[in-house]
Amino acid sequence: MSERATDKRWIVGVDLGGTNIVVGLLPIEGGEVLGLHSLPTDPVRGAKFVVDRICQMVERSIAEVLEQQGGTRADVAGVGIGSPGPLDRATGTVINTPNLGWRNFPLRDLISNAVHLPATLDNDANCAGYGEWWLGAGRGTRSLVGLTLGTGIGGGIVLDGQIYHGCSDAAGEIGHMTIEANGRKCKCGNYGCLEQYASGPAIAQRAVEGIEAGAASLLVELVNGKLEDITAATVYEATVQGDPYANEVMKDTAKFLGAGVASIINVLNPEMVVIAGGVTRAGEHLFEPLRAEVRRRAFKSAQECCRIVSAELPGTAGVVGAAAVFKRETYGHV
Amino acid sequence: MSERATDKRWIVGVDLGGTNIVVGLLPIEGGEVLGLHSLPTDPVRGAKFVVDRICQMVERSIAEVLEQQGGTRADVAGVGIGSPGPLDRATGTVINTPNLGWRNFPLRDLISNAVHLPATLDNDANCAGYGEWWLGAGRGTRSLVGLTLGTGIGGGIVLDGQIYHGCSDAAGEIGHMTIEANGRKCKCGNYGCLEQYASGPAIAQRAVEGIEAGAASLLVELVNGKLEDITAATVYEATVQGDPYANEVMKDTAKFLGAGVASIINVLNPEMVVIAGGVTRAGEHLFEPLRAEVRRRAFKSAQECCRIVSAELPGTAGVVGAAAVFKRETYGHV
Repeated sequence: MSERATDKRWIVGVDLGGTNIVVGLLPIEGGEVLGLHSLPTDPVRGAKFVVDRICQMVERSIAEVLEQQGGTRADVAGVGIGSPGPLDRATGTVINTPNLGWRNFPLRDLISNAVHLPATLDNDANCAGYGEWWLGAGRGTRSLVGLTLGTGIGGGIVLDGQIYHGCSDAAGEIGHMTIEANGRKCKCGNYGCLEQYASGPAIAQRAVEGIEAGAASLLVELVNGKLEDITAATVYEATVQGDPYANEVMKDTAKFLGAGVASIINVLNPEMVVIAGGVTRAGEHLFEPLRAEVRRRAFKSAQECCRIVSAELPGTAGVVGAAAVFKRETYGHV
Repeated sequence: MSERATDKRWIVGVDLGGTNIVVGLLPIEGGEVLGLHSLPTDPVRGAKFVVDRICQMVERSIAEVLEQQGGTRADVAGVGIGSPGPLDRATGTVINTPNLGWRNFPLRDLISNAVHLPATLDNDANCAGYGEWWLGAGRGTRSLVGLTLGTGIGGGIVLDGQIYHGCSDAAGEIGHMTIEANGRKCKCGNYGCLEQYASGPAIAQRAVEGIEAGAASLLVELVNGKLEDITAATVYEATVQGDPYANEVMKDTAKFLGAGVASIINVLNPEMVVIAGGVTRAGEHLFEPLRAEVRRRAFKSAQECCRIVSAELPGTAGVVGAAAVFKRETYGHV
């Protein structure tokens, strides 16, 4: 790869999710995301619709930033795309995404050809971790593990300033580490995955199960008795309002998460674990018991060099990381 | 590091364990271990005794090989040492080994100064994994995870042909991944570590617990009714003699081990998992249910590219890997 990063000023980052598409432009040397836009993915309208929408968003973000900042289209280096996986990075193909209903879909080249720019493709959770490493909580570290607690639990491993992909681009599935060998069945087919205890829906489910078993909680009031409306956000809200039961649920979340994070620390000995996702709004209600649980479980020599922190780029880590992947693959450095 | 490997013909490998010291010479380009010797560590006789014994064994192995193969002491490049950890590779210091009773012990330089040869120090489980990668089951792979099932469960991670050490030389503690968040207390302080279910003593303990709870088994006869004499080896022996209960215990071992191996595959996506230790003598009684459990638990795209195999260097992987570490650190390649 030739060293010509200074010829260009911008990289487009695309964060494709099952619910939303987020697009923005990054200055090639790093900085604020500009021309940031988000639209629903609407996967039911078909793959062509989604690809067209992404391309329109890319064009719109480019036009907006060039108008604001001056310059020409020649200042745009290319497009980094983050997508749910599994995927084949070499061919830029999405192998299979249940959420979007795609199989062996050549996403990278469809976008690249439509917008007439080079493009790269990587896993969305990898991009989120890499974004935090480049411009977020992990700035200046060499290694980190990113965990995004949402509908599932996504993981991204950064080692020595590079995303760690494994031998078939499948590494980093931290949400599918087993923390209870005979535990809850996971939709991945495994039992007792971390995701079944600490993802958003898992937090809500544990809260509901406790209430159904007789626990008194402000949660019932917050959802007007409709327990099916309880979400991780409701649990967070009840926690900060001082509800002891919701606080227990949050502490249990921290314990399960702590078991997973301690395993990651014992195995990978990273400099940092970055936690992202709505549940981090609970702040120290989550992080204090989480750090305590990790102290209880992980090896001293490994935990002492590992900071466990909240993500700093909520909403844009995926865009930033996708752009960082493009930069790395094109210029050999970030 | 200069490329002068061809000046030298031999590297000494030292595998220091809590029970035995094993020493041998490796041809610098790889091959059979020569001048192989093993003696008890006898740590109760003190650190000086152990270091002196290691140095005597090194001298004896060198003398023996040079006599057999010709050449002079100038043909010996140096000494690679594998030791229980945690340790500081940069200073060659053992930080703490409960089994040997050492703290901040400058093992590398004590040996290097005594035998007048350069030396390197790395973790014993890392060396075992690296030995299998260099000359054992993992020849030709780029990445593997080694697991040694013994008194504990040691782990070594090899990525892209190098031992993965993490940010404080503490990576690879695969035996201390949590597979049961509220499970058995481990001596490391954590709960539900893989080691508490699939190490040698854990296998024996599960076997005894079942018999005490009323299970009928040939095991009772094999130990003349003294249940405290049951070891993992006894369980293996009863399994191959067709005892259904012992076979159940072995299958349970495979299930617990499978949960841990599946987590490793989901997180690290390695080309190979190499299992070492006495329990692998159970052969397909262990590996068949182990592979089945991993198929049930791990992501398809990750497990399809990962072979789960038995180690090929029982007894010498640590010596081979310690020599490989010396070669890598001295010449920049293995």
